[in-house]
Amino acid sequence: MAATQSLELLIQALRRLPGVGAKSAARMAFHLLQHDRDGAQALSRALAQAVEQVRHCARCHTFTEAEVCAVCLDPERDATRLCVVETPADQAALERTGAFRGLYFVLMGRLSPLDGIGPADIGIQALLDRARDGVVQEVILATNFTAEGEATAHVVSEALRRDGLAVTRLARGVPVGSELEFVDLGTIAHALADRR
Amino acid sequence: MAATQSLELLIQALRRLPGVGAKSAARMAFHLLQHDRDGAQALSRALAQAVEQVRHCARCHTFTEAEVCAVCLDPERDATRLCVVETPADQAALERTGAFRGLYFVLMGRLSPLDGIGPADIGIQALLDRARDGVVQEVILATNFTAEGEATAHVVSEALRRDGLAVTRLARGVPVGSELEFVDLGTIAHALADRR
Repeated sequence: MAATQSLELLIQALRRLPGVGAKSAARMAFHLLQHDRDGAQALSRALAQAVEQVRHCARCHTFTEAEVCAVCLDPERDATRLCVVETPADQAALERTGAFRGLYFVLMGRLSPLDGIGPADIGIQALLDRARDGVVQEVILATNFTAEGEATAHVVSEALRRDGLAVTRLARGVPVGSELEFVDLGTIAHALADRR
Repeated sequence: MAATQSLELLIQALRRLPGVGAKSAARMAFHLLQHDRDGAQALSRALAQAVEQVRHCARCHTFTEAEVCAVCLDPERDATRLCVVETPADQAALERTGAFRGLYFVLMGRLSPLDGIGPADIGIQALLDRARDGVVQEVILATNFTAEGEATAHVVSEALRRDGLAVTRLARGVPVGSELEFVDLGTIAHALADRR
């Protein structure tokens, strides 16, 4: 497709997006240049602005444009509870429930030894420093219930317990609205063990 | 995910890419800001440059940075044959075969009445003007073999034949390397009718 250098550069740049291969990138470039040049300009500006403005909250590491994010600054929130999540998207999911009024710590990743992502890369030391502020009484681990998320929760929990902090994990169990017949066995076994 | 305005703008802008929904856009934004800020900057620059530099060839309508593209300017090419394709990607596929040494006309789209894309939108008049230059002897229709591509070929061919131009269509038949057992019936029927 790329008879022109600008087009070739654009296709190469689009391929750096996760989940976008050569054909998708060519289709995106064609769409933008043929049907949505305004969209291309808007995306160009949004990328430049986000790279310039978005940084990490000094307290919880989530994305923010200020030194400290709005959640961390909110005096209404319960500073004795700290919820550890993998990404801002996970934090947003928890916020949407309206069931948690404490503070967060966003790891911005998960342990993944196969990808060379170890404890230092997900800022475990920063989490320990944050949790030792003397106010936090309970750390709630809300990493994903995948193999990598569970490994992350295990490592984080070991480190926090050495510091004498109370550590809890989101409950494993049967999802709301599901029929037992169609729930996987591991989930049912966990729900049985953790019955209350 | 979007606690910050720049991030929200970026996610909205990414959603304008074809095939990218809310979750993909959030994942892309997270990836770029967390793991590939260089990539985000490169993409921002590539978009701005492409929007500014890339325009359509005055003769064949493909993407180019010059007034007329390199293929149209190539004196080695056979100007008596004009191949009509839907997109620059289709043109690139034909070029890779090395089997065509004529010139192209790129419609930059296809007829799609359901999407409100009629003959005027794919520049049929410009194609007629181009084909009536007195040099072109044969117009080869290489639009896709989809319902929309076939409809486009039909309309284009009717218009060109009214002008007394010789119009041909790429052969329909059994793909190279395929086993008849697994080829769809319509293709086999066409291959039988067009046997040679």
